[in-house]
Amino acid sequence: MLSKAQNKYIRSLTHQKYRKLHNSFIVEGDKIVREWLNEKAAIQMVIALQDWADQHNDLISRHPETPLYIVKESELESLSALQTPNQVMLVVDIPAPQPVSANGWSIALDNIQDPGNMGTIIRIADWFGIKNIACSPDCVDVYNPKVVQSAMGGHLRVNTIKVDLNEFISGAQVPVLAATLDGENIYTLPKLNPGILIIGNESHGVSENLMKKASHKITVPRIGGAESLNAAVSTGIICALLLKQC
Amino acid sequence: MLSKAQNKYIRSLTHQKYRKLHNSFIVEGDKIVREWLNEKAAIQMVIALQDWADQHNDLISRHPETPLYIVKESELESLSALQTPNQVMLVVDIPAPQPVSANGWSIALDNIQDPGNMGTIIRIADWFGIKNIACSPDCVDVYNPKVVQSAMGGHLRVNTIKVDLNEFISGAQVPVLAATLDGENIYTLPKLNPGILIIGNESHGVSENLMKKASHKITVPRIGGAESLNAAVSTGIICALLLKQC
Repeated sequence: MLSKAQNKYIRSLTHQKYRKLHNSFIVEGDKIVREWLNEKAAIQMVIALQDWADQHNDLISRHPETPLYIVKESELESLSALQTPNQVMLVVDIPAPQPVSANGWSIALDNIQDPGNMGTIIRIADWFGIKNIACSPDCVDVYNPKVVQSAMGGHLRVNTIKVDLNEFISGAQVPVLAATLDGENIYTLPKLNPGILIIGNESHGVSENLMKKASHKITVPRIGGAESLNAAVSTGIICALLLKQC
Repeated sequence: MLSKAQNKYIRSLTHQKYRKLHNSFIVEGDKIVREWLNEKAAIQMVIALQDWADQHNDLISRHPETPLYIVKESELESLSALQTPNQVMLVVDIPAPQPVSANGWSIALDNIQDPGNMGTIIRIADWFGIKNIACSPDCVDVYNPKVVQSAMGGHLRVNTIKVDLNEFISGAQVPVLAATLDGENIYTLPKLNPGILIIGNESHGVSENLMKKASHKITVPRIGGAESLNAAVSTGIICALLLKQC
């Protein structure tokens, strides 16, 4: 059984302030939790319904030093940050950010606000084997429960760092691409060495000072009437086209 | 001022049952509302804060027969189906579905459940000039407020029909592509005439009976570790690659 203090601790992790204070975050839901338990992640607690725990004994036993708490459905609901019902949640250590390697493409996110977009972009990076995402300090927290949910385990394989993007880009000796509505046609871009792809804020795009530093401004050409593409969808299309070239 | 009955009517439109009964839906938020007012859409009511109405007199006056109701912020909040604050909403007639033209690509959605995905796919179709989306009867309603929000005006230019996809595909004399995790590499697909792209359910993919009828099973090749791509992101990538070829 969870103590009152543990209850309070877990619920506090829906807020960024407390995630930072405790260097911990929550992973929720059957599918994502199974991914985490499969890895050597630093898991503090497993909180599960009896049925789920019974069915996943093998996975839980991979983490013999992690305490398992069996809770009732109502208790799990009160702890959850999500609206959808789930059967299990984990409290996990936030991993230390790794230095960004110079190999392969990186994504730089400039003030991405929507947790669904952030999570989906982490999932896209994970799909395309992109190892690093640099986030400007004003991006939504990558350990926000909705981000973790949309990333579908991407946090396990994609390194995210919070960094001043001006500095991040200034040191780069690689192509720096900025996604915009009036750039070069991405379809006819010459083959490039791997570099950095900057994706901008959902409403305002890539900020002006970063845009100036980009070596290529690129666009997915519009055929129809929409004013813009969703930030995560743009990221997916551009990654698919860039990585095809490599 | 809105009457009690009008209040009740507007609020009822957050439910699919009443949208169907009244053949009406809600469009919310400054940016999307401006798009709708710019078009010759059949608008039943404009409900706005005084400030917004003052600033957008020109747009409102394009619809001289549509009544304008000025409300207070608290009243607008109580009518809204969205969590984010907004300044204006419309009640709009659901347009009659148009017959699907044989020209150009169409998208067929098989049991897409997430409103965000549905709206984003309509927005993608709108971006790429894809005029028609066929939805299986078990898809989320395209007039759900969250779908309308994510589609960012796409409803104005993309025709959506609800139809048995087996029938829709059976009659087609065009390539029928199904997105899957183990199909042909989309990058090396030969150039195709425009046809139908089937996108499947978020968890289960394209259903087996539709898969059998597809002329091409296609995949965006995975490089990294993610188990799958988000349905809307896949749609975006595949559309970008297919329309590049044409």
